[in-house]
Amino acid sequence: MITVKKEVLTDLGSRLLMEAGVSADEAAWVTDCLVRSNLQGVDSHGVQLLPWYVNDFVNKKIQPGAKIEILKETPVVTIIDGFNGFGYTVARQAMDVTIQKAKKMSLAVTGVQRLHHIGRVGRWVEMALEEEMIGIASQPGGIFVAPWGGIDRKLPINPVAIAIPTGSGSPFVIDFSLGPIAGGRISILQRRGMNVPEGWLIDEDGNPTQDPQYGVSKGAQLPLGQAGLGYKGYALSMVLSVLTGPLIGAYSMTQHRPTGVFFGAIDINAFMPIDEFKQGMDDMVADIKSSKLGKGFSEILIAGEPEYRVQQRRLAQGIPLDDSVWQELMNVAQKLKIDTSGYQITEGGVSLHPSYTLKDRYE
Amino acid sequence: MITVKKEVLTDLGSRLLMEAGVSADEAAWVTDCLVRSNLQGVDSHGVQLLPWYVNDFVNKKIQPGAKIEILKETPVVTIIDGFNGFGYTVARQAMDVTIQKAKKMSLAVTGVQRLHHIGRVGRWVEMALEEEMIGIASQPGGIFVAPWGGIDRKLPINPVAIAIPTGSGSPFVIDFSLGPIAGGRISILQRRGMNVPEGWLIDEDGNPTQDPQYGVSKGAQLPLGQAGLGYKGYALSMVLSVLTGPLIGAYSMTQHRPTGVFFGAIDINAFMPIDEFKQGMDDMVADIKSSKLGKGFSEILIAGEPEYRVQQRRLAQGIPLDDSVWQELMNVAQKLKIDTSGYQITEGGVSLHPSYTLKDRYE
Repeated sequence: MITVKKEVLTDLGSRLLMEAGVSADEAAWVTDCLVRSNLQGVDSHGVQLLPWYVNDFVNKKIQPGAKIEILKETPVVTIIDGFNGFGYTVARQAMDVTIQKAKKMSLAVTGVQRLHHIGRVGRWVEMALEEEMIGIASQPGGIFVAPWGGIDRKLPINPVAIAIPTGSGSPFVIDFSLGPIAGGRISILQRRGMNVPEGWLIDEDGNPTQDPQYGVSKGAQLPLGQAGLGYKGYALSMVLSVLTGPLIGAYSMTQHRPTGVFFGAIDINAFMPIDEFKQGMDDMVADIKSSKLGKGFSEILIAGEPEYRVQQRRLAQGIPLDDSVWQELMNVAQKLKIDTSGYQITEGGVSLHPSYTLKDRYE
Repeated sequence: MITVKKEVLTDLGSRLLMEAGVSADEAAWVTDCLVRSNLQGVDSHGVQLLPWYVNDFVNKKIQPGAKIEILKETPVVTIIDGFNGFGYTVARQAMDVTIQKAKKMSLAVTGVQRLHHIGRVGRWVEMALEEEMIGIASQPGGIFVAPWGGIDRKLPINPVAIAIPTGSGSPFVIDFSLGPIAGGRISILQRRGMNVPEGWLIDEDGNPTQDPQYGVSKGAQLPLGQAGLGYKGYALSMVLSVLTGPLIGAYSMTQHRPTGVFFGAIDINAFMPIDEFKQGMDDMVADIKSSKLGKGFSEILIAGEPEYRVQQRRLAQGIPLDDSVWQELMNVAQKLKIDTSGYQITEGGVSLHPSYTLKDRYE
């Protein structure tokens, strides 16, 4: 583990992308999203994705320029073609359209076809939170989940984010896959030789297994729900698949899968005065937190609260990265002939050298 | 068990309610909704509720006349006061407003405060289906579910319905509680001395139990999700609680609970041509159904398909009722001095006497 200051990653990410040919603005935005994931402890969606993006950009799998086109719209609905641009810049524009329409029309939804990786879905509902709106974002992700009664991978893992403002404390932010476990987490467990809890995975014959070699490329994940209740997770997974697929013209009949991204925003003031709403939220949260604790728990948290706390800590102390992740970033930097002498590595971790100015980034 | 023809229950229900003072139209509509639940096999929400409704109506806990008032609205949002009228007539009006707005504005949502029982939430999304729209309906239900990390009943069971049109076969219709098990089903298991599956319930100390005496009035139900994943069901439960609570001005700060009903409708044509949408749906369903089967399954069904099949069968063969339910209905009829000689009871069950005309109902 190596602890890296936020400023170093922000600088490094932008420079890697810019050296690969990405515009300064787009490079800064993509990097900002990645570093924010690291800050929240969602390292699977952090700077470790940079080598992939640099590679896809150089190989023209990501189109530069963040072009979008509105294919169809009504005052509350927008269908967008992202022309395989950086998911981050396409998603930002799409969520921005959604929020602007919601401001006028109380609520709005947007579907996006053809775009590269959008990273952590939670990022996009945070945009709604900044406007004191409720936000929703979902993408399909990999086809990992078996239907209720079946044993083949047929349904997407369905990453979904929902953000709801609160009056005090951290906002309520869902940011998870509806299916049991994201691909990135499975490979981490596999590398570390760890098992997956019971009831999450089955092998090719449908037998229960805790071996993380299953669930992504063979076998399958079981839909959300304890014994006998998987039909609920299965049905909810189909709903999210419709929102990110057939409803927004982003369903592939050849691959039998949804391929789009769905965004929504709700202007709370169109329903209730925001202060009254927040009072209700705070009362609900306080009541839930007043529950007696289960064994092994020291506190009841709401969705988003753990990430919120990690962020406070990492902003102050820096971001712990696997040595291999840092090394790979340095390798890409070397390949792109980027001068990294402005980063000083001490026992405490990596920080910007006092003489290094951010201005250097654009030189 | 006694098998009763649909026509008998439709006639009997209307007459019971009318004799108690309910208007003919309202009595017919409430009864139609109840009988439809029985037809679909959802007997917990069928005619067995009639004695309760008659009683609440006579005791003025249900207001006659189905008055509603729009408290606040925008072109896509409506907040309605139901004045404690029959949930069925208030919900019908509220969903109708939602659908009409969705036709104009692509989608619409409605929140209802103060109304009596709305029965099976699936009934309201079926209204959207009739217009080839996507529908959503949710109400809080009882406070039965523990938060992730806690052991007290703090969250509602969250009955939720979502309907999505398909091109062929039965439509996709979710109609379940997000929490493990509705109160009605728990009491059936308790009466029959049966256990609840593992992982659904805990006792007052948070220990796992399969005893159905827990989960409603003591102990708690665990949120949706297999081992280690209950935080997902917990978070989704909070979202539904916000939609049926603070967002629509229907949250009680004294009882710490949501008290309203939430409806939504989406006009698919505003997004994609409906035929193209249905093609995608049919392809998705066919692909899911092509999965290899798990042990103990003979077929993969989509949400709503089991109920759809029961309905075909019960329409043809009649509705099996517990003897005690039939007897209780007869008792209420006797108390209200209703002539039931038009119903003939044979070995095959209960049907309308050939000489009995529906006209008699209004005499």
